[in-house]
Amino acid sequence: MKTVDFSKLKSGQKAAMARALAQVEREPDSRETLDLLNAAYQEPQGHVIGITGPPGVGKSTLTNALIAHWRSLGRTVGVIAVDPSSRRTGGALLGDRTRFTTDPEDQGIYVRSMAARDRLGGLAGLTVAGMVLMRAVYDIVLIETVGVGQSETDIVGVADSVLFCVQPGSGDSLQFIKAGIVEIPHIVAVTKADMGAPARRAMADMKGALNLAGRQGADPWDIPVLLLSSMQRQGIAELVEAFDTHLAFLKENAFLASARHTQAKQWLEEAVREKFGRVGMGRVMDQLDIQPEDSPFERLFDISQEFEKLWG
Amino acid sequence: MKTVDFSKLKSGQKAAMARALAQVEREPDSRETLDLLNAAYQEPQGHVIGITGPPGVGKSTLTNALIAHWRSLGRTVGVIAVDPSSRRTGGALLGDRTRFTTDPEDQGIYVRSMAARDRLGGLAGLTVAGMVLMRAVYDIVLIETVGVGQSETDIVGVADSVLFCVQPGSGDSLQFIKAGIVEIPHIVAVTKADMGAPARRAMADMKGALNLAGRQGADPWDIPVLLLSSMQRQGIAELVEAFDTHLAFLKENAFLASARHTQAKQWLEEAVREKFGRVGMGRVMDQLDIQPEDSPFERLFDISQEFEKLWG
Repeated sequence: MKTVDFSKLKSGQKAAMARALAQVEREPDSRETLDLLNAAYQEPQGHVIGITGPPGVGKSTLTNALIAHWRSLGRTVGVIAVDPSSRRTGGALLGDRTRFTTDPEDQGIYVRSMAARDRLGGLAGLTVAGMVLMRAVYDIVLIETVGVGQSETDIVGVADSVLFCVQPGSGDSLQFIKAGIVEIPHIVAVTKADMGAPARRAMADMKGALNLAGRQGADPWDIPVLLLSSMQRQGIAELVEAFDTHLAFLKENAFLASARHTQAKQWLEEAVREKFGRVGMGRVMDQLDIQPEDSPFERLFDISQEFEKLWG
Repeated sequence: MKTVDFSKLKSGQKAAMARALAQVEREPDSRETLDLLNAAYQEPQGHVIGITGPPGVGKSTLTNALIAHWRSLGRTVGVIAVDPSSRRTGGALLGDRTRFTTDPEDQGIYVRSMAARDRLGGLAGLTVAGMVLMRAVYDIVLIETVGVGQSETDIVGVADSVLFCVQPGSGDSLQFIKAGIVEIPHIVAVTKADMGAPARRAMADMKGALNLAGRQGADPWDIPVLLLSSMQRQGIAELVEAFDTHLAFLKENAFLASARHTQAKQWLEEAVREKFGRVGMGRVMDQLDIQPEDSPFERLFDISQEFEKLWG
């Protein structure tokens, strides 16, 4: 199979993205794959947005509405849909989800499902490589999780902006705090706003939780809590605006570069830990502190070679 | 600090359990700790029950009601409450939870909170050691998670019987399947039964999901779906009976021993992976297949010594 180079990927053709992702899956450690990932890592173009929240909250519907809105604005969108893995079969529970309705002729939208296969890999596996490839090509990279397992907190390590979705009737302030949810999002959306009073109550509860947890006022970024009805397309434009405002905030304060640098360091640490364990990681601590210009993929490659020598 | 030996632990005094758990935390790799864990592992007495479900579903209230019921039957109970960890502080979000109201003079109930500190440790860390210690002493070991993150699926690797709690209005059958929840429980409880019709609808949805996922009829164990109202103490006796029936089922079919053997193997694999990574684990594959009579703690110790030699 032919390998894809970075210029082909940058063409923005879906076929090139599909081949690049297949290549990362097939030969994650090859020199060609590494070159591709390094190049993509050095040229981030897009805004990476994570969507999380409990199952049933309406994330798929919302994602569809967001895609339609962004495309109507002429923005290109790459979507990574992280599926839960089946403990029994080891595969993705939903298979290739057909729940996103996009125009197959439209080269400006690419959707890829990934199984959150290995708990130890988590989002540190193919998802990050996929995000890096898509970020080099599309205006928006949307990562949607089903909100089970570690994915809710993992998303913080991958996305520039995290949206947490909550539905009416899902609990009071204390529950959100107990669940650790309030530490995650940059933006909160209460879905199913058409329910009226319960939706407004959920909004108040979420605001209360954010206040109690000290995530309002103290942080330089005040977390907006929005009411959404994907069915009625209510609040979608406001949400897109909130994403843009958060990105502008990150850029203004040089938070974007530093957050991505932190994410790269965390990814490297997790990848080394996944491959060589807590004890192995302890042996290469001094090599984990990469600079913003260093590709974490290249550094992992170097460290892996070192262990290979050590272990014969 | 004096170390605790197995005979002291078996006395069933709270102080001995507290000291034993502190010792495992303080010096997990010492010969004394290892001897204690090995002895406790070889003498399992209790029934290990896991309770999981989303935040706000009423797990704490239910746990309180269950403790009271078991104590009224004269059974001793050890509780491990797994708290979510704060990403920001690294500590448990809830601290030592005061949400369980137990009689401090009663030697037949011991409650211990643990932080699900490290995602890579998961329940494989102190929780399993704590479970093994408590299982050697108490009639019932109850492990309650807040149902965030990996804990929901991790519980399967620790408990003999898993109860999944769901509340009315939390989604339809498809949502339970999408979330991978249907693969987890041996018993399902719909809480807040006092809500009436919505609770009965949730029960029907859950039954539908279990059927769709092939967990009814095909499995030798038909998963009971119970209606509970902890406030009104409704359904608690039935739930305790369902736990007993499941334990009897496991014992009759020799599933209990084989399930615990599988759990021990999985724990060892996870512990080796956590310490030495995927690549390190690959090097000691032949040592991971322990026999039912082998202590996984002892085997981990042996493997660790081997790596120490290898890495100098």
